[in-house]
Amino acid sequence: MFDHREKHLFTALVDELSRAGKIALCGHVMPDGDCLGAMLALGLALRQMGKRVVFYSPDPVPEMYGFLPGVHEVQVEINEQLPLELFISVDCSVPDRLGHFKELLDRAGRVVVIDHHAGSVAFGNVYLNCPAFAAAGEIVYELLTMLPVVIDKDIATCLYVAMATDTGSFRYDNTSYRTHLRAAELLKLGFPVARINKLLYEEKPLISLQVLGAALQTLGISKCGRVAWMSMQRATLHSLNATDEHVDGIINYPRMIRGVELALFFRELEDEKYKVSLRSKYYLDVNKLAACFGGGGHPRAAGCVVNGKLEDIKSRFLEAALKELKDE
Amino acid sequence: MFDHREKHLFTALVDELSRAGKIALCGHVMPDGDCLGAMLALGLALRQMGKRVVFYSPDPVPEMYGFLPGVHEVQVEINEQLPLELFISVDCSVPDRLGHFKELLDRAGRVVVIDHHAGSVAFGNVYLNCPAFAAAGEIVYELLTMLPVVIDKDIATCLYVAMATDTGSFRYDNTSYRTHLRAAELLKLGFPVARINKLLYEEKPLISLQVLGAALQTLGISKCGRVAWMSMQRATLHSLNATDEHVDGIINYPRMIRGVELALFFRELEDEKYKVSLRSKYYLDVNKLAACFGGGGHPRAAGCVVNGKLEDIKSRFLEAALKELKDE
Repeated sequence: MFDHREKHLFTALVDELSRAGKIALCGHVMPDGDCLGAMLALGLALRQMGKRVVFYSPDPVPEMYGFLPGVHEVQVEINEQLPLELFISVDCSVPDRLGHFKELLDRAGRVVVIDHHAGSVAFGNVYLNCPAFAAAGEIVYELLTMLPVVIDKDIATCLYVAMATDTGSFRYDNTSYRTHLRAAELLKLGFPVARINKLLYEEKPLISLQVLGAALQTLGISKCGRVAWMSMQRATLHSLNATDEHVDGIINYPRMIRGVELALFFRELEDEKYKVSLRSKYYLDVNKLAACFGGGGHPRAAGCVVNGKLEDIKSRFLEAALKELKDE
Repeated sequence: MFDHREKHLFTALVDELSRAGKIALCGHVMPDGDCLGAMLALGLALRQMGKRVVFYSPDPVPEMYGFLPGVHEVQVEINEQLPLELFISVDCSVPDRLGHFKELLDRAGRVVVIDHHAGSVAFGNVYLNCPAFAAAGEIVYELLTMLPVVIDKDIATCLYVAMATDTGSFRYDNTSYRTHLRAAELLKLGFPVARINKLLYEEKPLISLQVLGAALQTLGISKCGRVAWMSMQRATLHSLNATDEHVDGIINYPRMIRGVELALFFRELEDEKYKVSLRSKYYLDVNKLAACFGGGGHPRAAGCVVNGKLEDIKSRFLEAALKELKDE
């Protein structure tokens, strides 16, 4: 199940956790379901072992995760009272992504990392980074099976949320048969799976739907049907009292259209200045496309900031995109 | 895993399948992913056993399922050439829901039913109805483990689609730990899980998004925030060249709003005649609410047809709903 290196690291981590009495767990900036779920599950388990545990997050917890057991204990400021024996960086293997908690790396007696994001530079006393796992919550699940703890309903809920959110409800290509096996073990513990999924996906701010409605009014599609786009002006967002949070995920809608390979979302930042988000469905390298405009990202998700009038920017992207799509 | 009754029925079914040479499989009207996936998986497996198999569907296969292995063989008309030894009703235990294929129940030598919908009257020689299974595809999976067949990538794809669609990507409360165990076994066979989920959920007709955009323009919410609604006029649908297919699922959007328990969707059928769809999130019995207006359905999903002006109908539903919500 694990390779030799991973097995050794899991053992070393168990050792670190067993020895420390006062432990801080911290996730990355802009916390998501995996980061929070994995952190809380591990912390709740460590408490079963008699440890003193604090939960840190460099950014506030999004309202949608307010139902997670233990989440109300998550602190965004450093708790000076606790002389730290162990600092655990969860779902984060880049020190800068710990925000202001980065300074604890020097102040804690020991530092360990539990993560699954590839391509980082190791730091800390134990650096457990397993990119084959879909979620940090999966790594924590395996870790808990090696510790003298009971996975109760609260811990199962946290781990399930970690796995379900980071795999897009088991849809993304990071989903392995092991993810389903772990989910099966968690479901056996009997937490209310349908209710938790409703709390995750059916409790959206009203404003998000209003922003979606406004964005869909701008929906356009190329003659060939392979590129679709939407845009959002500052005035519209202002009139809806909308913030960044409410625009999140809107780029998925033009990508959902049959035949579309590339989706673009143009969001006005200032007069004649737009943030452009790019998403592709099956094959187009949008990282490469965004690089033509001074941006970057990943093969299926990238972004850049471009100056100019909306119609001109749109034309430039469409021209560049159609050239790329033609080459395929 | 199975109770005594089910075990006996599985054995009887294996016996029927082993004896028959010419077999027709048929799903229900308005076929969905479970009905098609389960039917195709079983048929492909029966061919491994040397059986002659035809696939029937009373309604055409929706375009979104066009990627399913074997789906292009599905016929909407009766193939007179084949004297039927065995007719298998898949995901359907109400003869009328077989549409015009219902007549084959009398013409086939033997009839068996494989379904998971509760509350029907038994018919046929073997009536295997297991409501504890989330999907007919799950029942077929168990059946295949009892037959001399190999679950290959094509069969795995069909079974996965059956389970994933009928559980809302493993989100609904019919999802059991066994569903995840079965999904894990299927994923081991190595079909492209992310690609299949994109084909299912990211290949929507452009018109569907345009209809959603138009519907969101009508989004309303009660003062208390517990009831939200949208509406759709015939003229709007007409101007977008939209059909029933493009309106499907739109009722989910008002229900997604934080704090909303009841979602309503008013769709104009004729002048002053509306189809009203009702959905609740956690607890409200919309079957009961719809019954007050001459309709019905299930506790979380119901509908009715009401005459009157849109604003009047809206007021009547809101009044009735707020009374129910107050009682909770």
